[in-house]
Formats: sequence, C-alpha cells, structure tokens
Amino acid sequence: MSRLDVIGLGPGGAGLRTPEAESALASAAMLFGYGPYLDRVPHRPGQSRHPSDNRVERARAEAALTAAADGATVAMVTGGDPGVFAMAAAVCEAIEAGPPEWRAIDLAIYPGVTAMLALAARTGAPLGGDFCALSLSDNLKPWPLIERRLAAAAGAGFALALYNPISRARPWQLGAALALLRTHLPATTPVIFGRAIARPDEAIRITTLAEADPLWADMATCLLIGTAETRIVPRDSRPPLVYTPRRAAQ
Amino acid sequence: MSRLDVIGLGPGGAGLRTPEAESALASAAMLFGYGPYLDRVPHRPGQSRHPSDNRVERARAEAALTAAADGATVAMVTGGDPGVFAMAAAVCEAIEAGPPEWRAIDLAIYPGVTAMLALAARTGAPLGGDFCALSLSDNLKPWPLIERRLAAAAGAGFALALYNPISRARPWQLGAALALLRTHLPATTPVIFGRAIARPDEAIRITTLAEADPLWADMATCLLIGTAETRIVPRDSRPPLVYTPRRAAQ
Repeated sequence: MSRLDVIGLGPGGAGLRTPEAESALASAAMLFGYGPYLDRVPHRPGQSRHPSDNRVERARAEAALTAAADGATVAMVTGGDPGVFAMAAAVCEAIEAGPPEWRAIDLAIYPGVTAMLALAARTGAPLGGDFCALSLSDNLKPWPLIERRLAAAAGAGFALALYNPISRARPWQLGAALALLRTHLPATTPVIFGRAIARPDEAIRITTLAEADPLWADMATCLLIGTAETRIVPRDSRPPLVYTPRRAAQ
Repeated sequence: MSRLDVIGLGPGGAGLRTPEAESALASAAMLFGYGPYLDRVPHRPGQSRHPSDNRVERARAEAALTAAADGATVAMVTGGDPGVFAMAAAVCEAIEAGPPEWRAIDLAIYPGVTAMLALAARTGAPLGGDFCALSLSDNLKPWPLIERRLAAAAGAGFALALYNPISRARPWQLGAALALLRTHLPATTPVIFGRAIARPDEAIRITTLAEADPLWADMATCLLIGTAETRIVPRDSRPPLVYTPRRAAQ
C-alpha cells in the first residue's frame, strides 16, 4: 500500500478539524510536517514523526513521497487548508518532477478551514462579497508582481486576505503593501489583523487602512482588507461586526 | 439567553463538518436555513425546523434574529462556509438595519470548508498560488462589474473560483464569463467543474478554457479556472493532478 494523505489541520485545535482529517491522521504510520504543525497532532503509539523546518517544502514533499513509494502509509500535515499557500502544491510539483512511481501513489488531500475564513467568522462577514487571497511573501514571486496583484484586486473592488504578511527576512513588504492600498481605497476601509486564530493566544485587532500598522503583524498573522463598501457595526460591550455587503453597485 | 449561531455545514456530510459546528447544531432549539441545507442536519427531539426558499436570505436572517431576540437559542445553517457567498453577510446586514436589541444578541459564526477548497483538494492544488473567489450571480451586482472583476483577476494572474455560475434565471452569464476569460488566458488554461462535492452525486470534470462548456454547470457547481502557469499532471489509471505552482515569474 503506497499512500500519502495531505491533511489540513484547520487553524487551531481539534474543534475546527474535520472528522475525515482526524481519521486520516489516526491511520498514518509516518507523519511529516513543519514542526509547529506536527506539535498540534496528538502522539499515537506506532507512529513515527518527521518534523522539518519552514521553507523546505519541496524537500519535505520529496521525503514524504519517497516514504510512501516505499510502501508506508504517510501523512503530511499542514495548518489551515493544504491547498492555500501550503503543502498540496509542493507535493504536486514534486510528483510532476519526480520518478514515475510517485504518480502511482494513492494521494488524497483533506481540506480544512483556512485562516482567512476562521478570522472572517470571528468578526462578522468581511469577505461577504468577492474576495482574493494573496501571499505577501516574495520568496517565490517578484515583489512587482505582488504590487500589481494588490492594485488589480483593490481597484476592482475585491476584499483581500493577506497571508504571510511579514517575517524576519521580509520586514518591509507589509508596510509597502498598505501604502499601495491607501492609493486605491478610502482611508476608512476596515482592516483586520488576526493572530493565532482558534489557539490560546488568539488576538484580533479591527482598525482602518489609515491606522493599520505593520508592527501589529507577525508570522502567525492573517490580514483582511475590506472594500470601500465594507461596514463596521458598533455594538455595546461587544466587539464591532465587520461585513462586506453582498450587494455591490458600481 | 439570546443567541444566534451561524453554522457552516461544509460541502457534504458529517465527514467534512467541524466538531464545533456539530456541537452548536446539537445545542440549538430552533434551526433556520435554506431547505436543502437543513435536510443535511439530523433530526433531534425538541428542535424546531424553519426551512425557507433560496433567494430570501434577508427575510430568513430577520426571522432568525427575531427568534433569538425573543430568547431562543437559534441556529442558522448554511452549506460550506457562512462567510463565503452565504448567510453571515445577510445576518450582519439585518443587524445593522434592525432594532438595537439585535446588536445585543450573542452572535457566533462557525466557519466551514467552502466548496472551492473541497474541490481543489479533490484535484490537486489548482488554487496553490494567489486566487480570487467570485460569485457570477448578477442578482446583487451589475454584470459589467462582474466582467471588470473577471478581467482584473485573470489579467493579474490570480486563479479563480466561480460560485453561483448558472441558474434557470441566469442562463447566459457563465458563457459570457468564459468568453471574456478566453481573451485574457491561454486556451489551454485548466478549468475544473465540480458538482455536489463530498455528496453521493459528486461529479468532477477537468478540461481546458477552450473546451469548457457552460452546459456542464448547474446551481450546485463550483468552477475553478487556473492561470497561464497551472499544470495538468497525467497519471496512469488515475485522474490527472491539477496544480498552480507556488512560484510565479512575471
């Protein structure tokens, strides 16, 4: 049996993890993944664990495929959803470039709740109309392309979810992105910073494009940028609701 | 106790539904929702069910909020994720326009696996780079705006997920959208039609932009449109993998 399951853990603990994902986790003999994601999976007797560093996605995919081709039942775990800036694409890339037997592996991908949807649910419906998901990391694409995509999306009235907004090696990109967005959107456009959603250290900050400060983001942060039509609804003794109307006029 | 839970059921049955969503469903006294979504929820003694038709989202939201303000523990169920072309925005709109006591309701939104991510997982990683989610319905926005968003997204290299591609009242829009996309993307761009994902009548068709036929879609279909860089990886005696590389050059 040559099997690789690529499993989305969702944004936090077991409460936002699907039963199909749990079942696949339980049946694996070998677990691969970025260390902090593997740490979210309960230990089970007989399972071996193979944590790896961030930014070695391709090597991690190749190691898991090699083990699966050798006959192991292998699980690759990812946070959120495997198809959203995560391991599913790296596994497909490795299969295309790899030996023919990798195409015969029984590959299954288990979707999960991705960060932008968990954060949106916490705050109302900021992605209630059309929206884009964009990674701010320029490790794998040139910065001018990211700027072109930000301008195209904001200019056409999409709300935006920004993944990978900042890291030690990419300190200025979020500030540049916000500056660019300020030339396309009103200063009052709602902006939401969400950190570690559904985890014990969850933190959410609702602000405006004018006020948004890149220093509020870290590697575990997802940002949602509204549109010119996104509303903030104040509530007594509760956080406000943020939503983008389903109706759009122009 | 004045409580409204807006609950994402995920794309199919219980296997893709989160434990938090299941728990909220179990604790509700009244269930509201579009009839076919309510039909996916097991009957429990003591729970009343209030199905409504499609396209009455605002009235459904107001009925649920009225019941919650009267002290009931109310659940509003939606397919997929409540924040993606579903009920969360309609509930927020109703709260903003409604009586002050609706803002005091204990509102919680439970995210779910949305159709585009479930479909992407079935086929590889077609949304593996930056992507947009766009509703093709022109019930709530003018068609020229939809065309502008399609052009902006495809022109900037986003992959696209199209929700609500077609209905009896909107028969020509998907054909017009595909024709427009053919002017921005290569004829070979991969296109995926996914119908009733994770349900017994699931059907997936992988094709190209040149071949894609609007007649293959119905109301239960989600479409994924790749980019010029999206790859199709053939496999012996298995469906091909479709993925968009994480790396982008231009």
